[in-house]
Amino acid sequence: MPDHVYKKIEIVGSSPNGFEEAVQNALARAQKTVRNMRWFEVTETRGYIDEDKVGDWQVTLKIGFTLDE
Amino acid sequence: MPDHVYKKIEIVGSSPNGFEEAVQNALARAQKTVRNMRWFEVTETRGYIDEDKVGDWQVTLKIGFTLDE
Amino acid sequence: MPDHVYKKIEIVGSSPNGFEEAVQNALARAQKTVRNMRWFEVTETRGYIDEDKVGDWQVTLKIGFTLDE
Amino acid sequence: MPDHVYKKIEIVGSSPNGFEEAVQNALARAQKTVRNMRWFEVTETRGYIDEDKVGDWQVTLKIGFTLDE
Amino acid sequence: MPDHVYKKIEIVGSSPNGFEEAVQNALARAQKTVRNMRWFEVTETRGYIDEDKVGDWQVTLKIGFTLDE
Amino acid sequence: MPDHVYKKIEIVGSSPNGFEEAVQNALARAQKTVRNMRWFEVTETRGYIDEDKVGDWQVTLKIGFTLDE
Amino acid sequence: MPDHVYKKIEIVGSSPNGFEEAVQNALARAQKTVRNMRWFEVTETRGYIDEDKVGDWQVTLKIGFTLDE
Amino acid sequence: MPDHVYKKIEIVGSSPNGFEEAVQNALARAQKTVRNMRWFEVTETRGYIDEDKVGDWQVTLKIGFTLDE
Amino acid sequence: MPDHVYKKIEIVGSSPNGFEEAVQNALARAQKTVRNMRWFEVTETRGYIDEDKVGDWQVTLKIGFTLDE
Amino acid sequence: MPDHVYKKIEIVGSSPNGFEEAVQNALARAQKTVRNMRWFEVTETRGYIDEDKVGDWQVTLKIGFTLDE
Amino acid sequence: MPDHVYKKIEIVGSSPNGFEEAVQNALARAQKTVRNMRWFEVTETRGYIDEDKVGDWQVTLKIGFTLDE
Amino acid sequence: MPDHVYKKIEIVGSSPNGFEEAVQNALARAQKTVRNMRWFEVTETRGYIDEDKVGDWQVTLKIGFTLDE
Repeated sequence: MPDHVYKKIEIVGSSPNGFEEAVQNALARAQKTVRNMRWFEVTETRGYIDEDKVGDWQVTLKIGFTLDE
Repeated sequence: MPDHVYKKIEIVGSSPNGFEEAVQNALARAQKTVRNMRWFEVTETRGYIDEDKVGDWQVTLKIGFTLDE
Repeated sequence: MPDHVYKKIEIVGSSPNGFEEAVQNALARAQKTVRNMRWFEVTETRGYIDEDKVGDWQVTLKIGFTLDE
Repeated sequence: MPDHVYKKIEIVGSSPNGFEEAVQNALARAQKTVRNMRWFEVTETRGYIDEDKVGDWQVTLKIGFTLDE
Repeated sequence: MPDHVYKKIEIVGSSPNGFEEAVQNALARAQKTVRNMRWFEVTETRGYIDEDKVGDWQVTLKIGFTLDE
Repeated sequence: MPDHVYKKIEIVGSSPNGFEEAVQNALARAQKTVRNMRWFEVTETRGYIDEDKVGDWQVTLKIGFTLDE
Repeated sequence: MPDHVYKKIEIVGSSPNGFEEAVQNALARAQKTVRNMRWFEVTETRGYIDEDKVGDWQVTLKIGFTLDE
Repeated sequence: MPDHVYKKIEIVGSSPNGFEEAVQNALARAQKTVRNMRWFEVTETRGYIDEDKVGDWQVTLKIGFTLDE
Repeated sequence: MPDHVYKKIEIVGSSPNGFEEAVQNALARAQKTVRNMRWFEVTETRGYIDEDKVGDWQVTLKIGFTLDE
Repeated sequence: MPDHVYKKIEIVGSSPNGFEEAVQNALARAQKTVRNMRWFEVTETRGYIDEDKVGDWQVTLKIGFTLDE
Repeated sequence: MPDHVYKKIEIVGSSPNGFEEAVQNALARAQKTVRNMRWFEVTETRGYIDEDKVGDWQVTLKIGFTLDE
Repeated sequence: MPDHVYKKIEIVGSSPNGFEEAVQNALARAQKTVRNMRWFEVTETRGYIDEDKVGDWQVTLKIGFTLDE
C-alpha cells in the first residue's frame, strides 16, 4: 500500500449569507481545478461591513487533497 | 487623495440563537457610536452553557473603521 | 463562600449539517458523563470533504465545568 | 432579555510593589472613565529594572465592560 | 527502570485574595482525585471585576502527574 | 510619585510610499485626538496590490499613551 | 449514522532511546485506560540532559479517541 | 453578482537594498504566472549577513489573488 | 546577479515507519512536479493510531524552492 | 547621541515563596555577570508540586540590558 | 565535513532614521564581540514616540552565527 | 538550600543523518563552553534539501543550564 502524500492550499471563500456558505463557496470553486479534496481547516474568519451590517463573510481555509501517484 | 487611517476596536457580541447573530448583534450595537465601519475579524468564539446546551454564543471581533479627516 | 475550581476538557463534535450543530452534538455527548458544564471555547474548526462538499463539520472545543466540592 | 454586548480595552497598569497592585492600579484608573467593568485578561507581564531590582511592575490587561443600551 | 508517562489536565483555580492563592486552590482541589502531581504550567490569568476592583482572580493551569504503572 | 497607567489603541496607517510612512501617517492622524503618545508596536504589515505593484502599504500598530491623572 | 464525538487527552511520553519511542511509550500506557484511540498530535518536544547527552526524550501529545455511544 | 473566491500563495522575495524592495521583487516575479493579485501579508522578515552587514533582505509574504470564474 | 525569489508549498508526508521517512516521502513525491527544492520547515507532526500503536506518521512541511527566471 | 543597542538573555528564576520572589531571584543572580539591566519580560510561569502544594515557583524572563559602547 | 552548529542571540537595535538602519545598527554593535554572523530574523518592531512622531525605531532580531570548532 | 537560577541559550544543531543526531550534535558542541546542562526544548525543525532529498536536518533547541552560585 503506498504512503499517502497530501498537498494543502489556502483559499478564501466569501458569501453574503453566512459563514458556512462561504466555506461551501470556497470548495465549489476549488473543485474546478483540484481533485481528491479530503479535508479543510478554517484559519481565519472575517468580513466586510456594508451599511453597519455584515456585507460579506470571508473565511480562509486550508484544503488538503491527495496527490495522485 | 488622502492616505486612509483606520482604528480597530474589540467588541464581544452575544446571542442565544447562533454564531452569526452574535456577530450581527455586535455590529448593531457598535454602529450607535461608531461611523464608517469597514471590516471585522473574529478573534474568539465561546459561549455559556445552560442546562447542557449552548445558552449564549459569545463572539469577540475586532471592527475596523475609517477615521474621519 | 467557597472559591470555585473548574476543570476544562477538550471535545471534538461533528455534524454534517453545520458548525453550530457540531458544537451542540459535542455538548450533548459530554453531558452524559460531566455535570455542571458552564462554558465552552472553540479552539479549532475543520471538516472532511465528501464529493467536493463539506461532508462533516468538526469543531474542537474546551468545555469548562465546576468541580463538585 | 436583551443580548449583551461588551467592549474590551487594553490598559497597562504599573506598580513598584508587585504584580497584583499593578492590576489594581489599572482598574482604579480605568474606572474613572469606564462604567460596568466585568472582567480582565492579563496579556503581558514585564517591568523596568532599577539598580538590579524590579523598579516597576508593568502588567497589560484587557478589560471587558458592558455597553449601555 | 520504567520510562515515565505523565498526563496533563487543565484546571482553573480562583481566589479573591490573589494570583498565587488561586493556583494553590486549584492544587488543593485537584489533589482530591489526582495522585502524584509533579508540576504545573500557568496558561491564562484573568479575573472578574466587582465594583471596579478585582473580585476574583482566575488562573488556568495545566497540571502534570505521573501515571501509575 | 504616581504609578503610571497607559492605554493602548490599535490603528492602521497606510501609504503608497512605504512601510515607515504608513507608520508616520498613523501617528499623524492619532495625535489629533490622543495626547501623550509614548510608544508603538507593529502588529501586522500588509498592503493592497495595484497593477502588480504595491499600491498601498498598510501597517497595524498599537499605540501606548499615558492616561492623565 | 450517528455523529462522532471525540475526546482529546494530553499525555507526555518519555524514552532514553528517541523521539519515536517516546510517542510509542505514551500510547502503550494510554491504552491501558482508554479505548478507541484514533489519532495523536505532537505539541511539544523536549528532554532531560544527562552528562551532556540526551538522557530522556519527553514528547507531549494530544490523543484523540472516539467516545462510546 | 458572483461571490468572490481568492487563493493565497506564499512567496519569499529578496533584495540587497532593503525590506520594501524585497517585497516589490516578490510581486514582480509572481506576476509572471499569477493574474489578478489583490493584496499581500508579510509573515516573516529575515536576511543573510555578509561581512557583518545585511547582505540580503528576505521577506516572506502571502499573496492573495482572485480566482477567475 | 538576480535577486532570488522562492515559493513555499505545504505538503503532508506519511509513513508507517517513522517521522523522518514521512518527511522523505513528502520530498520524493514533491520532486515529481517541483524543481529546485532548497529547504523545508516542519509545521505539524501527528499520526493515526492503529490498534493502540502508531499506524501512520503524518508530517506537514513547507517546502521552499527557487522560482526559475 | 549614540543609538542604543540592547541584548536580551533568557533566565529562569525560582522561589518556594512566590511568583515575584522568583523574578527577584533571577535578577539577583543575573546582576553578578550582567551590567546595565533595563527591563524584563515574563515569558513563562510554572512550578514544581511537592506534596500537593506549590514546591517551587519557576518564572522564565527575558532580561534586556544596554550593550556598552 | 563537520556538522555545523549555530548559536542564536537576541539583540535590539535602534535608530531615529528608520527600520532598516535599526537592523544595521544592531549588526554593527554585535560584530564587535561575535564572529561568523550568518543570518538574522526580525521578531519585533516597535519604537518610542517623541512629539507625536517616531522618535526611535526599535527592532528586535535574532542573530545566528557559526560556533567555531 | 539556595534557590536555583537557570539560563537558557538557543542553539541550532545539524546532521545529515536525522533529527535526533542533530540534537545530539548541538549538545556535543554546547558542552564545550557550558557546564551543568539540564534540559532542552525543541523550538524549530527544518533542513536543507540536496538533490530532492534531505541534505541536512537543522533543529533549533533551547538549552537550560544551572548558573553556578
